Amino acid sequence: MPVNYTPPSPGQLLRVPGVALGTAHAGIKGWQRDDLLLLRLAPGAKAAGVFTQNRFCAAPVTVCRENLARADSIGALIVNAGNANAGTGEQGLADARATCSAVGRVVGCEPAAVLPFSTGVIMEPLPVDKIVAALPACRDAAVEEGWLTAACAIMTTDTVPKGASRRVAIGGVPVTVTGIAKGAGMIAPNMATLLGFVATDAPIERTLLEELTDELAQESFNRITIDGDTSTNDSFVVISSHQASIEPLTKRSDPRLSPLKEALAQVAGELAQAIVRDGEGATKFITVKVEGGRDAMECDRVARAIAQSLLVKTAFFASDPNLGRIVCAIGNAGVDDLDPRRVSFWLDDVAVVVGGGRSASYREEDGKRVMAKAEIGVRVALGRGEANATVWTCDLSHDYVRINADYRS
Amino acid sequence: MPVNYTPPSPGQLLRVPGVALGTAHAGIKGWQRDDLLLLRLAPGAKAAGVFTQNRFCAAPVTVCRENLARADSIGALIVNAGNANAGTGEQGLADARATCSAVGRVVGCEPAAVLPFSTGVIMEPLPVDKIVAALPACRDAAVEEGWLTAACAIMTTDTVPKGASRRVAIGGVPVTVTGIAKGAGMIAPNMATLLGFVATDAPIERTLLEELTDELAQESFNRITIDGDTSTNDSFVVISSHQASIEPLTKRSDPRLSPLKEALAQVAGELAQAIVRDGEGATKFITVKVEGGRDAMECDRVARAIAQSLLVKTAFFASDPNLGRIVCAIGNAGVDDLDPRRVSFWLDDVAVVVGGGRSASYREEDGKRVMAKAEIGVRVALGRGEANATVWTCDLSHDYVRINADYRS
Repeated sequence: MPVNYTPPSPGQLLRVPGVALGTAHAGIKGWQRDDLLLLRLAPGAKAAGVFTQNRFCAAPVTVCRENLARADSIGALIVNAGNANAGTGEQGLADARATCSAVGRVVGCEPAAVLPFSTGVIMEPLPVDKIVAALPACRDAAVEEGWLTAACAIMTTDTVPKGASRRVAIGGVPVTVTGIAKGAGMIAPNMATLLGFVATDAPIERTLLEELTDELAQESFNRITIDGDTSTNDSFVVISSHQASIEPLTKRSDPRLSPLKEALAQVAGELAQAIVRDGEGATKFITVKVEGGRDAMECDRVARAIAQSLLVKTAFFASDPNLGRIVCAIGNAGVDDLDPRRVSFWLDDVAVVVGGGRSASYREEDGKRVMAKAEIGVRVALGRGEANATVWTCDLSHDYVRINADYRS
Repeated sequence: MPVNYTPPSPGQLLRVPGVALGTAHAGIKGWQRDDLLLLRLAPGAKAAGVFTQNRFCAAPVTVCRENLARADSIGALIVNAGNANAGTGEQGLADARATCSAVGRVVGCEPAAVLPFSTGVIMEPLPVDKIVAALPACRDAAVEEGWLTAACAIMTTDTVPKGASRRVAIGGVPVTVTGIAKGAGMIAPNMATLLGFVATDAPIERTLLEELTDELAQESFNRITIDGDTSTNDSFVVISSHQASIEPLTKRSDPRLSPLKEALAQVAGELAQAIVRDGEGATKFITVKVEGGRDAMECDRVARAIAQSLLVKTAFFASDPNLGRIVCAIGNAGVDDLDPRRVSFWLDDVAVVVGGGRSASYREEDGKRVMAKAEIGVRVALGRGEANATVWTCDLSHDYVRINADYRS
């Protein structure tokens, strides 16, 4: 069960004109459910993406990058769950390209206008034949109301589908932002076995869309960590279907951008948090905020050192205020000239460490009270500047080990 | 149960003339067993240490560094288990210094000639009174045959005591190297809640001893990782009691040094490996060797990325050849210009990935056969140079979570 996250109900994910979603059962991993998703975009739709920093990036990531560089408009996205098509060498690239060609034939666009995505087991050959055979069913099923079905089809170890929607007005014209995401493990600094797709009918010019996508990723999917592993397949794509009847947005200075940006940020943030809330084995959702740093980078390092410490995460799981482990993690963050005597930290509103030592007011029962909650805030003050950074994470439970020891079986 | 490690039997840890060890029950954490260790050194003994890189280093680490800088000879080491005296601010420093003063009075040396060590829970005040009250009992119990008893007294979550001995001849005179260590979690790049003490009666001049200690740490305790956390208290100390009747060793070029260095390296290496073999919840011992790198640093990064990946570690626990997780970890190591097409890796003698993709000869049953073993070798070839590095680690099991979720209770 995710931590304080209710999956979207049917109808809650608003349709985005120009974006139709269809799913089918390709049988990639022996699951009974649908495991293949086709997003079909209206002519003229633009897309931008942010991808994994893993050097062993998956074949579909390489092909996505190539196609985004080559195609001006994007006609379709194809997503399979159950096989990552990563660590598959040249054959993997050929398989991803063959998938794009087949999609192009089925929906009627250039292969280069197709973006492929895969998530699942690494280093197994992609069953292209099964995917190709299921494409007509995906196409025939595609409807603008298909977001929730789509969110279900891309799940792997996720326990619930994840989606979010917002509607805002731009110059009096209502536009929609809807997104879905999947991911529950291998979630780390630079994204995750994480797929995130956000679409809007608001027309956003390509260069601006690319800038917005980078910023959105930085403030949402790049703020989360579950187990510290950056997967081979992480992809976050923002689609602009250009279907809303307003003048295209081309510049950051355009005052109409502000409400749209806010809606995009809300949808991306909600999806990113949903991934942590549904983190493998997660029983707690933890917000780590580090402030008073010289720059955002060092705040980020400290926040991640805390969020990724196995000892901190198991203490949260145990509801045990063994808070010395947080002290230890702060000291490990690689901020070489950190003066421990200026460091303080709080658990929610409870001062635990002040000036590098245990707060005189700290009582174990107060620590226990906060640690028992499902939603916990850790706030660290470094006492050396004005910068800050926030990271979202979850605890490490028995179930994390169980899920990851059993995943392939 | 540790992985392929039999703890030393009584008599197996050879006495080092000039080093007497006594333990007592101070009652620091409510354990019934002895939890305080005094090492009493003959006059003129030298010591050198390597300590944690954690910025929140424990008070005893700070005092050790100070005293090693001030005192020419060391008279005693005092070690308590159950309380780390870390994250304890100015009071912690005062407590560590008070402990040294009390030890100085009891054994008859300057407080600055005493090195203090603590291991256990972080951020709890050190019960100095209990330690001081137990010091006379430690002194009265101290004997040169006390190594195994000592190894037991410093344990925390260790399941077995850890010790090793070697005897070598230097210019025809036999000298002894004996060491003990503790540590089972919070074990990482730059050591661990790890205490390691190695002593020899061979006379080694101070500056040379310091150089040797650094080298030994680099090739032993700094090669291991269990959970990636560098503790606040890591300390590795090498003692030269100067009791053997040979001319002091002063220079690296001295040909007599070679057999002694080899014996020291064997003892330190055996202790470091014993810590991983007894890692919290460990069921497998894994040697990760990365070769073909441009420099040792990048080999080390790749080896640690593998050794510290939760997904890799849970796959080893499950005996599941989900080897894409190793591919993923290699890609995550931060070697920016790594060309995946030149990367290969082996599980023991089984080629898994060749040229960035699955080896044509790889069969799942071969992977399973190796993964089922208790002792596994991972060898990665980066294909870009001549450097190499090795890291020792263990798997991540249900018991790791259980141990760390329950530690304080």
